[in-house]
Amino acid sequence: MKLIGMLDSPFVRRTAIGLSQLGLTFDHQSLSVFKDYSTFRQLNPMVKAPTLLLDDGTALMDSSLILQYAESMSTHSLNHLNPALFAKEQQIVGTALICCEKTVQIVYEYQIRPEDKRHEPWVKRIEQQLQEAYRQLNQLANTHQALFDTKKLSHASIATAVAWNFTRQMRPEQLGNDAFPRLRDWSAECEKTEAFRKYPYDDAMSGGGPWASA
Amino acid sequence: MKLIGMLDSPFVRRTAIGLSQLGLTFDHQSLSVFKDYSTFRQLNPMVKAPTLLLDDGTALMDSSLILQYAESMSTHSLNHLNPALFAKEQQIVGTALICCEKTVQIVYEYQIRPEDKRHEPWVKRIEQQLQEAYRQLNQLANTHQALFDTKKLSHASIATAVAWNFTRQMRPEQLGNDAFPRLRDWSAECEKTEAFRKYPYDDAMSGGGPWASA
Repeated sequence: MKLIGMLDSPFVRRTAIGLSQLGLTFDHQSLSVFKDYSTFRQLNPMVKAPTLLLDDGTALMDSSLILQYAESMSTHSLNHLNPALFAKEQQIVGTALICCEKTVQIVYEYQIRPEDKRHEPWVKRIEQQLQEAYRQLNQLANTHQALFDTKKLSHASIATAVAWNFTRQMRPEQLGNDAFPRLRDWSAECEKTEAFRKYPYDDAMSGGGPWASA
Repeated sequence: MKLIGMLDSPFVRRTAIGLSQLGLTFDHQSLSVFKDYSTFRQLNPMVKAPTLLLDDGTALMDSSLILQYAESMSTHSLNHLNPALFAKEQQIVGTALICCEKTVQIVYEYQIRPEDKRHEPWVKRIEQQLQEAYRQLNQLANTHQALFDTKKLSHASIATAVAWNFTRQMRPEQLGNDAFPRLRDWSAECEKTEAFRKYPYDDAMSGGGPWASA
């Protein structure tokens, strides 16, 4: 199977790292939903990253749906079976995805639109949601330290590290490096692991395309 | 547990119908992420609909993550255990979610922004993606008719009907009623079921607030 999308999208990157941690084999094709629009469109007319193309041609989209399918194909799991811990994991993933989504919305406002088409009240609203999401995520990572372990990465802990690094790279002014120390430290720890180094944000940047949502 | 959000959000509505079909008991609190922003913010500072508040205070967000958690709490499933059919279900849900997301993006462009802040190339791009997504969804519904059965609703078949009704209500000019006949007929069938009538789009409209994403 083939994962399509650039690793500077946090949704693509968390999918790539999750698939690899689940022990699944896949090719990665780094295509931008902007720069490579027409090539991407031939593979998936909806031009959505990540796209996971299965061997029978089925195209899966949406990082959460892809990873749920991947879980069912793997002999092990990056989720907790204990209901209370599974709920916490889903809360953390949901919060990290909001961090990604709100960052993407801010980036889109500044990079897709000409200056005179930006709408300040909208940006202010998103920035407030982003701050709240990171505040909540930092608190969750502090309270549930056992869920953040590089020896046993989970969908939640991967999403958290990927989100933090993405926002720091794309909109550093949104996050002081010391504003959420637990997230900063967790991101630093994760970026040293083999899985994160195999699917790095930086390499993707050399491709020059912007990030895609979901 | 309590589901927060208005049923004119397709993400909230598919969650409500999915939870009820899984046999889970919940209260529904209809709050708008726009009109009821400050009240919503007290319950969830990220102001994200749907939010599922568990009895221990855990706040789950994102319809796919909520429904994945709900599956684990239920004695039955709205997914297929057969891997090939599960892949198809995930493909259909992913495509329906793109239909919802692209519709929301068009609605946001027209309802959140003043006219002089709209960006035509962006709208054109989204409209093209929306058309492709509905073309694909109609084809999937035609090819996999066994997956669309009101006697055995699944996450995929629910998402499809909810998406179609949402776009027809919010941006009817995007979808001729006869452009995608299989989707039109499936939506009509679903809207007659008890589950869809219990969580209707129309009632929510009387609340007057707009739709929220994810």
